[in-house]
Formats: sequence, C-alpha cells, structure tokens
Amino acid sequence: MSYSRRFEPLVVVEFSSSARNDTKQWLLRRITASRQENGAELLASIEADSDNKNNIMYVGALTDRLLEGGEELQIKKRYKDGTLREFLVADIKNFENGDDPDNFLSMSTKQRIIWEELQNLRPEPHEHAVPGAPMKSIDQNDDTILGLLKNLDYIVNVFPLHDKEELKRLEHTWYMTSNSWLQFKPLPIRQVRDYFGENVAFYFAFLEYYTKSLVVPAIIGIIVRFFPCADFLKYSFYCIFNVFWWTIFMERWKRLGNKLAFEWGALDVQIFERPRPLYHGPLVRSPITNKLERRYPPWKRQLKKYLITYPVIMICLSISLTIYFTYYRIQKRTNEQLMSDHEKAMSLSRYGLRIVPSAGYSLLVTTITLAYKRLSILLTDFENHRLQSSYENNNTAKLFIFYFMNCFIGLFYEAFFNMNYGNVAQLLITMLVVNALINKFVETIAPYIAKKFKKGQLNKHDPTHKPSDIEKQTKLLTTFNVFPWVTICALINNIFELRADAFKFCHVFQRPFAQLVSNIGSWHYAFDVMSSVAVVTNTALIAMHPSVRDYFSGYSDIEYILMFVAAEHILLTMKYALMFAIPDTPMEVEIERARSLYESMQALKRESLSADE
Amino acid sequence: MSYSRRFEPLVVVEFSSSARNDTKQWLLRRITASRQENGAELLASIEADSDNKNNIMYVGALTDRLLEGGEELQIKKRYKDGTLREFLVADIKNFENGDDPDNFLSMSTKQRIIWEELQNLRPEPHEHAVPGAPMKSIDQNDDTILGLLKNLDYIVNVFPLHDKEELKRLEHTWYMTSNSWLQFKPLPIRQVRDYFGENVAFYFAFLEYYTKSLVVPAIIGIIVRFFPCADFLKYSFYCIFNVFWWTIFMERWKRLGNKLAFEWGALDVQIFERPRPLYHGPLVRSPITNKLERRYPPWKRQLKKYLITYPVIMICLSISLTIYFTYYRIQKRTNEQLMSDHEKAMSLSRYGLRIVPSAGYSLLVTTITLAYKRLSILLTDFENHRLQSSYENNNTAKLFIFYFMNCFIGLFYEAFFNMNYGNVAQLLITMLVVNALINKFVETIAPYIAKKFKKGQLNKHDPTHKPSDIEKQTKLLTTFNVFPWVTICALINNIFELRADAFKFCHVFQRPFAQLVSNIGSWHYAFDVMSSVAVVTNTALIAMHPSVRDYFSGYSDIEYILMFVAAEHILLTMKYALMFAIPDTPMEVEIERARSLYESMQALKRESLSADE
Repeated sequence: MSYSRRFEPLVVVEFSSSARNDTKQWLLRRITASRQENGAELLASIEADSDNKNNIMYVGALTDRLLEGGEELQIKKRYKDGTLREFLVADIKNFENGDDPDNFLSMSTKQRIIWEELQNLRPEPHEHAVPGAPMKSIDQNDDTILGLLKNLDYIVNVFPLHDKEELKRLEHTWYMTSNSWLQFKPLPIRQVRDYFGENVAFYFAFLEYYTKSLVVPAIIGIIVRFFPCADFLKYSFYCIFNVFWWTIFMERWKRLGNKLAFEWGALDVQIFERPRPLYHGPLVRSPITNKLERRYPPWKRQLKKYLITYPVIMICLSISLTIYFTYYRIQKRTNEQLMSDHEKAMSLSRYGLRIVPSAGYSLLVTTITLAYKRLSILLTDFENHRLQSSYENNNTAKLFIFYFMNCFIGLFYEAFFNMNYGNVAQLLITMLVVNALINKFVETIAPYIAKKFKKGQLNKHDPTHKPSDIEKQTKLLTTFNVFPWVTICALINNIFELRADAFKFCHVFQRPFAQLVSNIGSWHYAFDVMSSVAVVTNTALIAMHPSVRDYFSGYSDIEYILMFVAAEHILLTMKYALMFAIPDTPMEVEIERARSLYESMQALKRESLSADE
Repeated sequence: MSYSRRFEPLVVVEFSSSARNDTKQWLLRRITASRQENGAELLASIEADSDNKNNIMYVGALTDRLLEGGEELQIKKRYKDGTLREFLVADIKNFENGDDPDNFLSMSTKQRIIWEELQNLRPEPHEHAVPGAPMKSIDQNDDTILGLLKNLDYIVNVFPLHDKEELKRLEHTWYMTSNSWLQFKPLPIRQVRDYFGENVAFYFAFLEYYTKSLVVPAIIGIIVRFFPCADFLKYSFYCIFNVFWWTIFMERWKRLGNKLAFEWGALDVQIFERPRPLYHGPLVRSPITNKLERRYPPWKRQLKKYLITYPVIMICLSISLTIYFTYYRIQKRTNEQLMSDHEKAMSLSRYGLRIVPSAGYSLLVTTITLAYKRLSILLTDFENHRLQSSYENNNTAKLFIFYFMNCFIGLFYEAFFNMNYGNVAQLLITMLVVNALINKFVETIAPYIAKKFKKGQLNKHDPTHKPSDIEKQTKLLTTFNVFPWVTICALINNIFELRADAFKFCHVFQRPFAQLVSNIGSWHYAFDVMSSVAVVTNTALIAMHPSVRDYFSGYSDIEYILMFVAAEHILLTMKYALMFAIPDTPMEVEIERARSLYESMQALKRESLSADE
C-alpha cells in the first residue's frame, strides 16, 4: 500500500524568545529520531514567526507513523462487517475507508496522536541536563521533555492547526445557515466530533439536548404563570412537573450519551485507557497487559488529598463565604438607604443602584474564580492521577464545590434565613442576565476584537485554553427551579449560547486537542446532585411562600411542616424510583456491546482450540 | 482420553401413580435419544419405589456428554495460567484438573447440566399429543416435555441426589465441630458452593457476613444502653452509628459478593445468560450470537405487568391492610380490657393474654403469605421472563413489597400515628421471637420429625422446595433500628440460624439444583431501600421520644421539627456520599476482569492478523 510522503504540518510548538537554539535543536532531534533511538519518529521543521525569529516548530508525521500511533492509542474504527473494532495497521483493508490510508484517520485524531507522542517524549538515559540550559537537571523517572521545556518557560504553547477549508464547511452546516440557526436542523455532531474531538462534541451534544429539553418546561411555565388558579396549585404542579421532567431529562441524557460514546468507540475506553503523559512513578509490570508501566501508589495520592487538597479547599471556601457575607452587609445597607427614599419607588435608576453591589460582587467572584481555577489545576496535577478521566473528574469536583457555593450560598441564605423572595428573584436574574452579559463580553467579543487588531497568523487564535464550561453549566443548573421565568431566561440564553460557543470554537479559542471521553465527565454527578437538591429547596420554597401558607390556613404550623416534609420524601422516592427504572444504556448499545464481547470470546476459544491441534 | 462408562444416577424424576407407562417410556426415549434425534442423549432407567411401583426414574450421563453440556452452559473454569476461562471440551487438558475428566465438574454442576437438559427437552415436530395421554395436545412453540408432564400431574418432583459421603465431609467442616459452631472458623463457603451451587453458597456467605457484622453494633448497643448520659445523646449516637455502620456493611457486602461471584465465574454471567427453559416465544435470530433463539416481545411483558400484575398486587396489599386494621382493633380492645383489671398489673399471664391477638395475627399472616407466594410465582411465570435472574428479581420484588407491608405497617402505624412506644417494642419482640420460634418449628423440627417417621429413602428429603429466605431476610431487616436490644436479639437469632439452616439444607430440605447467580439477587436493592427508610424512621423515632423532647425544651415545636428534618437530610446525604465513595467491585477483581477482556481482545486481533496473511 502506498502512503503520501508529503510533510503536512499538524501541530505547532511555539517557543518563547528566551529559548536557546541548542534546546530547540535538541527537541527537533528527539522528535525526528527513530523509535529505536527512543525518538518519536515524527517530522518537524523550525520556522520563522512574524518577528522573524525561529520560534515556530511545525510537527507532522508520515501516514504509516500516524497509523501506528493510532494502533497504539487503541482507537476503535468501524470494521467492514459493521462492528467497532480496535484498529490494527496490518488489518487496515478490512476497516471502512481502509483503502485510503492517508485519510483514514480524521485530522483531529492525527493531531491527538502527535500530541500524545510529544507528551510522551522522554530524555535519553544518558542525558542528565537540558541542552542549552545546563542548570536544568533531569529526573530520569519523572521528567518528560515537554514538561522540562515548559518548566523553563521555553515553550509558550502547543496547539493543533486549523484546516481552513474543513472549518469553513463545518461552520456552514453548523451555524451559518438560517435553517440551522433556528434549530430546525440538528447539530452536525459527527462532523464536530471529527474536527474537534469527542470532548467538544459531547459538550455541544449536551448543550443542544439541554436547550431542546428546556422548551417543554418553558411552555408549561408560561401556561402555569397565566393559568387562573391558586398560587399553591401553580407552584406545586410546576414543582412536581419539574422533578419528573429533570429526572427523565438526566436519564435520557445518560442513554443518549452512552449511545454516542458507543458509536465513537469511547464507551469502554477507561478499562484500557493509557496513563496521562504527566503521570509519573517507577516502572512496574502491569497486572493486566503484563507490559512495563509507571505506577504511583494510590495511598500516596490519598494522603496528598487528605493532608493538602481538602484543607486548601476548605480555606478557599471560607474566603469565599467571608466575601459573600461582606457583600451581603453592603447590599443590605444600600437597600435600606434606597428604601428610605420613598418618593422614588419603582424607578429604573433605583433598580440600577440596587444592582450595583451584586454586579461588583459578581466581578469580584469572577476574579477569585480565575485564581481558584489555577489552584485547582495545581492541586490536581500534584495528586498525580493515572488516567486523564480521573484527572478531569477530580478537577471538576474541586471546581464544582466552589462554583456551587458561590452560586447558591446567596440563594440559600436569602430564601431560608431571610425569607426574602424579592432578593431571591433579583439574585437569580443578576446571575443569569448580568453574568451572561459580562461573560459574553469577556469570553467572546473582547478576544475577537483583540485578535482582529493583532492580525492573527498561522490559523492560530487567542491562546485561551479550552473554555471552561463549568461556570456555564453551574449557571445552567439554576434552572432546577420553581420560578418559571428562570427557565424561559435559560432557554433564550441557551439558544444564543449554542451559536456563540460554536463561533468561539471556530474563531476565538485556540483549536483544542481532541480528547477521547465517554461523556460530559463528572457533570453527570453534578446534575444528579443538583436535581436532588432542587427537590428539597423547591419544596421548601413553596412551603415558605405566604400565599401557600394562607391556602392551608386550616392547618397548624406543625401539621403544615410535616405535610411538606412528607411531600418532599414522596417526591424524592419517586425520583429515585424513576432513576432506577430507566436503564442508563439503551438496549441496542447493550446488544452491540454483548456482540463484540461475544466475538472476542469466540476468537479466544478458536485460538485455544487451534493451539491444541 | 478415557472416560468412565459407568451409569452414576444424578437426578431423580418422581412420577405420580396416575402416570401411564406409555408416558414414562416416552420420556425415557426422549431422554436417552441421541441429539441428532432431538433427544437429550442422557442415561436413564425406571425403577421401583418403596410401594413397588415403577415410579422412579434415575437420570445420569456419560462424562463426555456432561462436559459437552458444561461447554454449552458456558461455565467458567480456572485455566492453567490462573485466569478464568469459558470451558471448552477440546481444550480440557489446559484447565486445572483437566487430567481427570470424570471429576472435572462438581456433582452439583453435573446435576445442573442434567436439569437444564431435562427442562429443555421438547416434543418432536411430528408429535401432536402426549403418548399415554392422547387428550393432551402439544403446542410446538411453547411446550416442553417436562412442562407438559407436570401439567398433567404425571411428574410430582424432580430433584438431584445427595452424595452421602460428600455430605458427611461437608457437614463435618461446616457445623459439626465445636470450633465451627462458635464461629471461630469461617464457613467452608467453597465446599458449600461445590455441593449446593452458587445460590445457596451466596445465601450462607451473606448470612455469615451479616452475623459477624452484627457483633459490632450489638456490643456498641450494650455499651450505649448502660452508658450514663442523656437518652437523647444515646439514641442519636446509636442512630448515627447505625447509619454509617449499615451503609459500610452493605457496600462491603457488594465488594465481597462481587469477589465471590468473580471467583466462581458468575460475575458477567448475565450478558450471555441462557434463556430460562420455560421462556417461550417464536424462534428468531439472536442479534448477539446470530443463533436461533426464542424471543418474546418486551412490550407484551410490560402490558401484562401494567394490566394484571400491578392491579393484583394492589388488591393483595389492600386485603393485607384490612386484616391488619381488624387485628389492630381487636388488640386495642383486649389491651383496654386488661388495663381495666388494675390489680393484676405486670403479671406474666396478663402479658400472655396481651400477646394472643399478635400471635393470632402472625399465624393468619403466615397463611396468607403462603397463598401470596404461590400467586406471585403464577404472576411471574405469566410475565414470561427471558432470564432466570430477571425472573427471580421480579418474583422477589413482588414478595418484598408484601412482606415489607406486613412487617412494617404495624410498626409505622404504632410509632407515627399512635406514638405508642410500648407497642412498637412489643411488636418488634413478637416479630423476632415468636415468629422465629414458630418458623423454626414449622420449617425445621416438624419436617425432620415427619421424615424420621416416614423413613426416607433415596437420600430424598421432604419435598419442600428451596427455603424462602425472604421472610427471614425481611425479618433481618428489622435490625436497622434504634433499639439496641433488637440488634442483640438479631445477633443471637442469626448465630442459631446459620447452624439451623446448614442442618436444614443437609437433612430437611430436598437438595436444590445448583443455580449460577452473581449475588443475593434483588436483596441488594431491598437492603439499600431499607437502610434509607431506616434513616428516616430512626430520626423520626428519636424526635418523637418524650425524653428527647424534654432535652430540647428550650426550642419551639417548629424549630425542633426543622432541626430533626435537617439532621435527617444530612444523614441521608452522608449515607449516599459514602455509598458513592466506596467502589462496588474490589480493585483486584477489576484488574482480573480487565486482564481477561484484554486477553480475548488480543486473541481477536491476532486472529484478524493471521487471517490476512
């Protein structure tokens, strides 16, 4: 079979101006060296950047090298018999599109392969210092070349190149036509996956699913809002409806997510997931594959978590609480001052003034959040997780606790201790609208303008890393709510978000490396937790509403409370029963999985039989 | 390889005296016919029973036929490289003990194979009526021979034979030595499994684990009971302790159960589980193995459940409730009459009189329960489940709801509506002690005496089927309780139960057919549900205790209730967090599983490679 021998640049390594030439040449040598010499056997060339300094390195690879890398990454591809199988170079002609090896792997997969190889590049055993930086000594056990150079600040950035034509095609089907804009057509999720990788595709698949799911509660919300009946009936109907709707929503997402993950060969990925390149530890033999692997004892990780991570998180949460209560005092004083001006009641400017402390608080929280985000990455790096998935889950969990606190402490405090419904509604609207506007500006418009002025080259965008979906998602969680208009706001917000994010991925953010993930990560759990919390808080909110209390004026306080406690328990029980009753994996995926397991077991059987003959 | 050609009887088919000779001969022919002729290819002979009628049929098989059957059942055996693999006759010499094919399979496995074959025996296509019973027409799609003959009441019983020597050895290590009696030695669980099969082994493994786990709360309970401090502190400490203890208990059991299941080759059994012999439906091609299989559309089963099963269960529950409230009125009247006799307060006879209605109620419930049990089997049969495991789970779920109602409705009603703690304690003691005594007599002593008088032959015991662990387990569930002495009673009860049950399995019950199961079935879920319910009820019980209310006399009623509601929510949250944090499968099992999956995937790879060469 003949492969193209052309050098197609796929990944860019950007050096800082402080990087020595010796060091660059060292990296080049190690990248291009053959695998026998412990090199990566890729292609690379150093070229001049816009300032005419040799600070740009393009990395690519020959097709056979890429295919080999794909086999090592155990990527799954569709076999000609329709099943998904682990890719094997020698068997390529039996895979779909195997006749065209140059285009057999998607560009994002090729870039992922190169990225893996670059990250796994380690110094040779005889090298004890970095060439060009003799002061930097090498730890043979733990150091990777990329890690060393990043540590020295010699490497500023590593990113995959865009493919302009492909991107244009993708954009066109994604959000450039009015048809796609009005959401009459589903997202081209498979194209997004081929171009950006599974993690980005999952994010959009979820956002699309979520947006579509919001339509029903939004409509029901409007109907309930204007339906002529007692507030109590309205609220409780909407609350019960929401419990069921969101439970079914999450369960259906799990099914859809598993279906996508299966189609993308990502479902059982964790069992054989390769260790993260930055995972360090001594080499020992794997009990599964019997190959040499790095292994860091889990108890050490646990110790680090208990002694360092958890205390640090607690301190951060305390700081965040202190800030909230300071803000709260200021807001209260502002409100009291405005209250004393009786004549100007209900004017717009008064509303504006009332919002100043909230907006200031939001800004402060945004700043602290950025700092916390860095801290969280540092801590998670330090914990030395073996798998990318557990690394991400641990990072997300840290962020989630923090965001959760920041988002909901205010709501809880207002609703349950001050019973101030005006403030709850105001806070929710501030959170959704003001934050959304600030974030839109900070995330989308400002970098785009900056980029326009800077005249980006190399297809490279602003080096902001992967957008953090976390604030966004936490914000989305506020829709588990009894207030119908919050759902409507969220729906409108999401419709814009879907397009804005698509635009950002294509034009604002640096192209991310594809990542094989099997779902939206820990967000599963966050949503599950939140929807349980929502049952509790919504029941409480309804119970505390004065009009509801009036409705049950015949009951004593104790009876009233016990009635709502009982209602809450019944709702929670029904919710869990529903979660239990709906299987997480669709039938057809289970069958497909069983079929491929069956086939590999049959192969093992045939093998042991033929060995006996 | 040479196999023994001796006919070793393994299974007994017992005919009724109404069975015609033609029919018996027909069954014999079909059992012994070769597989080409759609027979079972087993060995069988008809012999005289104690009344000198030819009503006993012994069934056995040649070793090679049994091994073939084992391969078809996809049993897993330890390979010589230490991994578990699906057994292959042609590869037998690479399995442990493969050099002695006659003893390669345990007796219980052999019996299970024969039982499967007997159950799968179907009439030949040209047969339209049962020989010897021309009125009984045959439905080619649904009927099995055993089903037809049972339907005609020609077959009374089918059971596996005991192996007297093996049984003696097992008994000795199990419960005959004082050492084992005092529980200083663990159960010989692997021997129990080889003799009785996985389901019985799981039952005893669980009972042993449960008994051992009870020691800690029992000791803590005694200490708490006599510790000099306020009742509130005692109760709440014991309650919190119990929540954590039982959560950890259940999670540890899941891990232990998964470990045992893995060792016994039962862990991933569901994926390829063979359909139940009684499962009926038209033959279609399986999407997994591409072989012909019966298939009954799931929507029909759902329809049956919604239209028949659920309504019938509701009716039964209503009847049971009616009985309870009738009993309750009688009990109340009795108590009032006794109360009016002031002088005889505290006498034993008075206590005895008070207990009469409870005992009567218990007896009535036992009778109804027996009827309900039959109904539940009928309904579950009617639902036509494909897998034995889902059949059992559905049956257990039906029984659980009913037992749960019967056991706990009284407790709930007394505790929450009448706030009558005396009655709660009395009911609990009645449930544990009186029921235990009645059951012990009904289940163990009476059948044993009866058997002694009847002079059993054939190693056959009383044809009571598998003991229903269900009442027992539901009773065990009562230990999720704030009353320490209930835990102590349960512990003592369990220590006896372990031995009594061992004795019953060896001497009272008919030997059961081994069944490959991967855990204690739906009891998992029942325990999980119960331990959540326990958190709610225990918190409520503590809150309602007068001494606790006194302890918090400074609080208003509302504050008091809200405090306990908050405490309950915190306990539940911690419980779920703990359940989530402890993985269900131990690390070493995960590694073993991944290893065997890895190996079969490697075999598939090698196969596709060698196919290309």
